[in-house]
Amino acid sequence: MRAPNSEATPGGSADAGRGRGELAAIDRLRRRLPGPPADEVWIGDDAAVLSWPWRQLLLTTDLAVAGVHADLDVVGIDVLGWRALAGALSDVAAMGGRADQAVVGVAGPPDTDLDLLYEGIDACARAHGCALVGGDLSGAPAVVVSVTVTGHVPDDGAPVLRDGARPGDHLFVTGPVGGAAAGLRALRAGAGPPPVLAGGTRHGGAHDDVTGALLEAHCRPVARLSEGDAARRGGATAMVDVSDGLLSDLWQLADASGVGFALARVPVFAGATLEDALGGGEDYELVFAAPHGDRLAAEFARAGTRRPVMIGACTADVAERTLDGHRVERSGWEHPWR
Amino acid sequence: MRAPNSEATPGGSADAGRGRGELAAIDRLRRRLPGPPADEVWIGDDAAVLSWPWRQLLLTTDLAVAGVHADLDVVGIDVLGWRALAGALSDVAAMGGRADQAVVGVAGPPDTDLDLLYEGIDACARAHGCALVGGDLSGAPAVVVSVTVTGHVPDDGAPVLRDGARPGDHLFVTGPVGGAAAGLRALRAGAGPPPVLAGGTRHGGAHDDVTGALLEAHCRPVARLSEGDAARRGGATAMVDVSDGLLSDLWQLADASGVGFALARVPVFAGATLEDALGGGEDYELVFAAPHGDRLAAEFARAGTRRPVMIGACTADVAERTLDGHRVERSGWEHPWR
Repeated sequence: MRAPNSEATPGGSADAGRGRGELAAIDRLRRRLPGPPADEVWIGDDAAVLSWPWRQLLLTTDLAVAGVHADLDVVGIDVLGWRALAGALSDVAAMGGRADQAVVGVAGPPDTDLDLLYEGIDACARAHGCALVGGDLSGAPAVVVSVTVTGHVPDDGAPVLRDGARPGDHLFVTGPVGGAAAGLRALRAGAGPPPVLAGGTRHGGAHDDVTGALLEAHCRPVARLSEGDAARRGGATAMVDVSDGLLSDLWQLADASGVGFALARVPVFAGATLEDALGGGEDYELVFAAPHGDRLAAEFARAGTRRPVMIGACTADVAERTLDGHRVERSGWEHPWR
Repeated sequence: MRAPNSEATPGGSADAGRGRGELAAIDRLRRRLPGPPADEVWIGDDAAVLSWPWRQLLLTTDLAVAGVHADLDVVGIDVLGWRALAGALSDVAAMGGRADQAVVGVAGPPDTDLDLLYEGIDACARAHGCALVGGDLSGAPAVVVSVTVTGHVPDDGAPVLRDGARPGDHLFVTGPVGGAAAGLRALRAGAGPPPVLAGGTRHGGAHDDVTGALLEAHCRPVARLSEGDAARRGGATAMVDVSDGLLSDLWQLADASGVGFALARVPVFAGATLEDALGGGEDYELVFAAPHGDRLAAEFARAGTRRPVMIGACTADVAERTLDGHRVERSGWEHPWR
């Protein structure tokens, strides 16, 4: 889009050759990224053209802001890119879906390191088998990354919403939580130079295993697509991802389903605190409800993923929100809006 | 997504009741907006669930930044919202497609007037028959709106790309250009209070017809979806929208197609200058190439839209870029990137 309140600047092939300007940046990024198959159009036209063999589309958008979703004093901007895409992919995972394509918008000042940013985005896309098929760039006073992801539910299955949990359903989480919050704390405490994703090598120096895993949890969270698919196949009745914090996200599931919850335990990421686990966000593990039975375990075994951890049960009293018999308060992050 | 470098704030139903917080804002917006049909899920779950009867999907994303894409000293933030969505819809129009759904991300400071912003987005969506099906909100130091739109080509038709123009094809534009740039100038010269889109009434006081039309062109640009569809049916070989500026966008079409262009005339919006018409962006008229013949006129007549204006022809010499026999330089806007 044109910037109406700025002076027009000449563009064209000379600029492209020098590697300056938006078009040159898009072209440079396009050449870096995997290209489309013969029957599709990705980056470089007005819109991406995609051949869809399915009738149902999952579509989600997510924002990540420098200084809000990644502290660039302690991590590289590639981490912002990875986390932006992982957050959107996690939304597809929480439907029990498969992620297909992503489009990415980047707004920022002229000196934004787009190459490093896209390195993180591209690495995350490859790690999750998601194609980047388009995007937009714009000047802005702050770096904002927007990611939109399309997906589908395999085998014409039904997506798992957040409102289907019933009293008596068990509650599960796909892995220990709190690692992302504890990882950020470790980085700020001087755990080492910013991890760099380049070439799959982290140039952050030596860390013990626990700290290294915390840094990974913060810098390269994994969207649990296989686990979400297994949960759906295993009969999950409601599912969300841990983006705002376990209690906050579970709270939404319970509110939407009209149930309460009684938690018996919560698996805490090694090196994290219980507070991290309950209130820390962006772990991107999945929380879901499912009726008692063997089907769930069988599907996770078949998927070859970690087994989910049962953390409690849904109850008929919608006001019940307890952990180990004690009432819990909702905690987690909300952006302030007037 | 959680903001890891900020203190967690309590959220929950109390906040929702007071109308504060992200969830309350989302809920408030959802209640304002049209809801989904029974077999779909829109705002309120991890991802939107959409029933797609077509195999081919158009997908495009666009950013609009306060102070860059809309000057909030002279227009309301609803204008930023309208223009953000119109820009993305125009990308679908430029493929000859129909726009289906949009997801919108909004990043901004806590005092951002989300209601007024979404008023503009919603008005634009209704005007174009596009459904808003999801979104995200995040805190940020500056207001950035990201819009992603899905679309499809009716009747299993092929989208019109930008690389299909051939020497001898005529060049057309769907309407006069330069109005958006001239409209901004008029606003800055004190053409009146910021136009407000609320309820379809502009509270900008009295303007003469020419000025009123310029303000409309700037504040409520229309994506030319019907015209793009007619151009596709009429045999258009390449098409782009005027987002960066007529010459800049035509330049891209010519480069992609490997043709030159010789323009005979350019229709200038009443009250705008030739410079506005050639270099001003965000008019969102469409520029396309099509072979000589009756089919084009017939399709536009059938669509009931304004007839396109023939502005010149594509030539075999890719270096030829002329207007009325004089060489033109590319002009238009590119965001600076290092």
